[in-house]
Amino acid sequence: MIVVLKKESPKTQVENLIEWLESQKVGVHISEGEFSTVLGLIGDTASVDEHLLEGLEIVESVMRVSEPFKNANRKFHPEDTVIDIADHKIGGGNFQFIAGPCSVESHDQVLEIAEGVHKSGANFLRGGAFKPRTSPYDFQGLKAEGIEILLEAKEKTGMPIVTEIMSAAHLPLFENVDVIQVGARNMQNFDMLKELGRTNKPILLKRGLANTYKELLMSAEYIMSGGNENIILCERGIRTFETYTRNTLDIQAVTVLKELSHLPVIIDPSHAGGMSRLVKPMAMAAAAAGADGLMIEVHNNPSKALCDGAQSLTPAQFDDLTKNVRKILNALNEN
Amino acid sequence: MIVVLKKESPKTQVENLIEWLESQKVGVHISEGEFSTVLGLIGDTASVDEHLLEGLEIVESVMRVSEPFKNANRKFHPEDTVIDIADHKIGGGNFQFIAGPCSVESHDQVLEIAEGVHKSGANFLRGGAFKPRTSPYDFQGLKAEGIEILLEAKEKTGMPIVTEIMSAAHLPLFENVDVIQVGARNMQNFDMLKELGRTNKPILLKRGLANTYKELLMSAEYIMSGGNENIILCERGIRTFETYTRNTLDIQAVTVLKELSHLPVIIDPSHAGGMSRLVKPMAMAAAAAGADGLMIEVHNNPSKALCDGAQSLTPAQFDDLTKNVRKILNALNEN
Amino acid sequence: MIVVLKKESPKTQVENLIEWLESQKVGVHISEGEFSTVLGLIGDTASVDEHLLEGLEIVESVMRVSEPFKNANRKFHPEDTVIDIADHKIGGGNFQFIAGPCSVESHDQVLEIAEGVHKSGANFLRGGAFKPRTSPYDFQGLKAEGIEILLEAKEKTGMPIVTEIMSAAHLPLFENVDVIQVGARNMQNFDMLKELGRTNKPILLKRGLANTYKELLMSAEYIMSGGNENIILCERGIRTFETYTRNTLDIQAVTVLKELSHLPVIIDPSHAGGMSRLVKPMAMAAAAAGADGLMIEVHNNPSKALCDGAQSLTPAQFDDLTKNVRKILNALNEN
Amino acid sequence: MIVVLKKESPKTQVENLIEWLESQKVGVHISEGEFSTVLGLIGDTASVDEHLLEGLEIVESVMRVSEPFKNANRKFHPEDTVIDIADHKIGGGNFQFIAGPCSVESHDQVLEIAEGVHKSGANFLRGGAFKPRTSPYDFQGLKAEGIEILLEAKEKTGMPIVTEIMSAAHLPLFENVDVIQVGARNMQNFDMLKELGRTNKPILLKRGLANTYKELLMSAEYIMSGGNENIILCERGIRTFETYTRNTLDIQAVTVLKELSHLPVIIDPSHAGGMSRLVKPMAMAAAAAGADGLMIEVHNNPSKALCDGAQSLTPAQFDDLTKNVRKILNALNEN
Repeated sequence: MIVVLKKESPKTQVENLIEWLESQKVGVHISEGEFSTVLGLIGDTASVDEHLLEGLEIVESVMRVSEPFKNANRKFHPEDTVIDIADHKIGGGNFQFIAGPCSVESHDQVLEIAEGVHKSGANFLRGGAFKPRTSPYDFQGLKAEGIEILLEAKEKTGMPIVTEIMSAAHLPLFENVDVIQVGARNMQNFDMLKELGRTNKPILLKRGLANTYKELLMSAEYIMSGGNENIILCERGIRTFETYTRNTLDIQAVTVLKELSHLPVIIDPSHAGGMSRLVKPMAMAAAAAGADGLMIEVHNNPSKALCDGAQSLTPAQFDDLTKNVRKILNALNEN
Repeated sequence: MIVVLKKESPKTQVENLIEWLESQKVGVHISEGEFSTVLGLIGDTASVDEHLLEGLEIVESVMRVSEPFKNANRKFHPEDTVIDIADHKIGGGNFQFIAGPCSVESHDQVLEIAEGVHKSGANFLRGGAFKPRTSPYDFQGLKAEGIEILLEAKEKTGMPIVTEIMSAAHLPLFENVDVIQVGARNMQNFDMLKELGRTNKPILLKRGLANTYKELLMSAEYIMSGGNENIILCERGIRTFETYTRNTLDIQAVTVLKELSHLPVIIDPSHAGGMSRLVKPMAMAAAAAGADGLMIEVHNNPSKALCDGAQSLTPAQFDDLTKNVRKILNALNEN
Repeated sequence: MIVVLKKESPKTQVENLIEWLESQKVGVHISEGEFSTVLGLIGDTASVDEHLLEGLEIVESVMRVSEPFKNANRKFHPEDTVIDIADHKIGGGNFQFIAGPCSVESHDQVLEIAEGVHKSGANFLRGGAFKPRTSPYDFQGLKAEGIEILLEAKEKTGMPIVTEIMSAAHLPLFENVDVIQVGARNMQNFDMLKELGRTNKPILLKRGLANTYKELLMSAEYIMSGGNENIILCERGIRTFETYTRNTLDIQAVTVLKELSHLPVIIDPSHAGGMSRLVKPMAMAAAAAGADGLMIEVHNNPSKALCDGAQSLTPAQFDDLTKNVRKILNALNEN
Repeated sequence: MIVVLKKESPKTQVENLIEWLESQKVGVHISEGEFSTVLGLIGDTASVDEHLLEGLEIVESVMRVSEPFKNANRKFHPEDTVIDIADHKIGGGNFQFIAGPCSVESHDQVLEIAEGVHKSGANFLRGGAFKPRTSPYDFQGLKAEGIEILLEAKEKTGMPIVTEIMSAAHLPLFENVDVIQVGARNMQNFDMLKELGRTNKPILLKRGLANTYKELLMSAEYIMSGGNENIILCERGIRTFETYTRNTLDIQAVTVLKELSHLPVIIDPSHAGGMSRLVKPMAMAAAAAGADGLMIEVHNNPSKALCDGAQSLTPAQFDDLTKNVRKILNALNEN
């Protein structure tokens, strides 16, 4: 970490800062310039808060040289992480489709969709039992009953299931869930992340609507520092000034996250744009950019399941999507 | 709510949508235009998800006419909410200073600061016992012990205390806390908001870094719909493209939130800019704009308490700040 | 356009508004609701400023039903625009590579790169003669001399040239330029857009760093309303809170712009991320998402031309990129 | 400037970079660390493009130690710049109100408003003759005739006038204009900035909707490097994710810009929020935060001049605003 001090800084304040840094077990190399003094911090600077330093009266600017995440860092783990879930691998060149309804509504609904997407090549079934909704007056999900329905569908189809958790207090209900999803709004619910770090469940960690790549990796680090290294990162759109689409899909995230980290990276095009007609082209773009998989909302009865109609595909549209994505994957695998 | 449909929409899809809306107990008024069909939704549309409608193939655009929040809405509660905490009122023209250290570190630290800020006119003591940190390797707070220390300071000084909660599972520790703070990163931790709605504690609800005014009010609504109407809204800076400051203080939030809602609105200038030299001018701006109070970080020993030095004032600086803020409040109260 | 009025609006103000709207040749349909009055504006509302209405005391909210752009609107021109430049077509299924150096530096540099990219399948040569630089102390381009060099390269290779204009006063220098580029910072230089509307040159119009889709299309409309309908839209990254990359490539722009407009849409992945290692995966994503072409920076001498090294590829890297992009285009064109 | 290189960087690339830097007349100090090599650049680094360096394969990150702006930099000009316009000073503790209509519509309109705001204490008259409009179908201003009308009002009232320029080609029309305004959309119209640098007119330079503090100061630098040092900086709201208000007023800009630069800083609260009811509280906040002045839209005939009604005050509202702002200024000037 490099800290640039202002030229006119009082000597005692500079000394206090250096003393404090050394008390944090960080070595300090000082070089005096014409307009500023530069401190080079040496050793384990992961626990030094750069915002704290930036705010000091005597500090001009701060730059991290090494990233504060370790377990998630590709520098220390050059090989791709491959997560094996019921014999379905994700990461390291293994591409997976995760598909299913927005909300779990009934046994029949889930089973019908599960069978449909399975036929089209999806290996994972997703569905929301606990639903994070902006309004307390919106449907909050079937909760425990919803998880039961997903587990029944798993039994019938053999597909491992992915579903979202909203409170660590619900963890006992997730005992037979294969992949626990952390939603964008809970990406920095640090207490819950710590609890998930104590489980051995694969975690699908969604990027928050206004969180940076590094913050996403620090949230992965919260889970990994507890001992659970099975994390799948998921880009699902970020909040920008553009309001025509619900969010802006940050497709560069695929390349950058895979460069910074060894963890698998998937794309959720259904939530990013919030319009079903954006799902297919964005899924194809994600595959072309090198993503490790896709998470897609699929609904079964367009005339009734209005809720899913917004950003969900029909099974036939999903089938068409998988065919087009596979064309791209195949073309890129040819020599 | 108004829903504009595309001209070329298939008749059966339009009929399905209208049928579904009516099944949600919403009246539908249809008017046909040259380039589009406009549906006017009548009745209680709070539970109709506008994003869902926006995503439908046949929908051109959606506009809410009435806000989806009720308990927090000034239209239905024209009078300012005034919250009385141990005889200190906030809202309705009552301005309050909430001050104290970033993190609770020791009994002596907290007591010294508490006495200092009390002398300068602060009526509430703040201090972090549970600390939300981006990195798992940063100091996470003294937790239960921190709350004990705050309660001791409360006993000695008579100041009610404000401290942050990070998980509903910790609620029993907050039994004697006067005001429970919900941090920006947990503004949409809906499960925790629901639990707080079942308590009778005043809640200081911070706006998330990338959350709109309406989302903040919907989060207040989560708490209020549970029966707890004692909410203080807090603007603490939002995330924008500008990186010179940590966040951008949205001063317009004061006027807008007080127009949309009857709840008190305070400003936290310490976190917004992340630089101690921005705190005083922004506190003065907040008072001039009509805020109901300020939440300010104050530290005691500048040479040692480095952590606080970033965005915190010394007690002397805080005293100067209160004097300047009072000049403005007094000038505006004169006739 | 729909205008929702506040319930308690003074009658005379409402009447004044309606009178004013009618004086703008707009029909007004009034419907009274429980909590608000809704005005439906009928006829040509393109010249009614929605921001103006939004700011009125009596107005609750405003929603445009029809877009304010006409010439650029797919509703009125359902067919894709295909622009033919020296027998190279762009749009309507015709994919083009535009490649060349960031800045024109010398005759030899440009010719070497032009020949290199031509061999790899680029049909258009790009190069900056006038350079918009944030700092007045940075190299501002070779200007007229730079355009001369590009024209020489055009003569030798037969490639039409694309180069940026920074002031309408320079138009005479662009007489033999094939495609005039408007940079992101000048997207709303309305006076220059009007001048370009009076020429018959194809215009490559880049989206501003913080401009919406609709603003981009309104800027196209400025040019088209002057009579010049040959516009190529270009997404080149937008400004968001994420700072790891220079800008965030908004890949959804491809789908949305092609839905709203009949104009061709290309992607500039070199400027979006600002890192050469992002160019290839983003170019592939753009092709998969349905873009009509790519604009890519290529440099010739990595050890010397440092300037280009940031976001530019070597000719060999560009050749590899075109091969991978073609794999995708070919796979998608197969049946 | 500090440049951190990746550990595994090829030696020849590092040597090429250093050689190139030295050819730019920049000294290079190299220090080798465990995970990276750090280059310290010494001397005049203003012309070294940091984005260029950031994009290089071998570069991990880049940090500027000294700002690239010089003429605008407070470090080299510690004293506040005070601009004297027809005996009205701005900057250095001199607070000014600039007021007038959004658009110049007629002689009578401008004169009536000018006399009204003059009575309330405004010393400068503003009014738009050339109007930058998002849509080509919106009213584009009275142009030369509008400037004539402003000059007549100046003659009658003695108030110096402020009006916007949209193209350097119009400069001859501005010969008798006192302050030339550069609008937000032209903040990076570098060719026009250069032309303005060759005049001796005071320039009111508005911050672009998505431009950083440093970019604003670099645009000031464009003008100043041409010899014109009379610049007034103006914050007028930035583009964020919040859409309830037109833009978000960045009140921290006042403190930061005055810290980084010696130039006067004013606030335009009319455009920031886009709602007349936000103007007064934001004007008061600006005064409390230390701004050097305000630019306020005022209209004369609320029932007719609808255009101005959105974000403009009536003369009576403006009079009330000035009284409240003065209360704050007076309170802060007392001892």
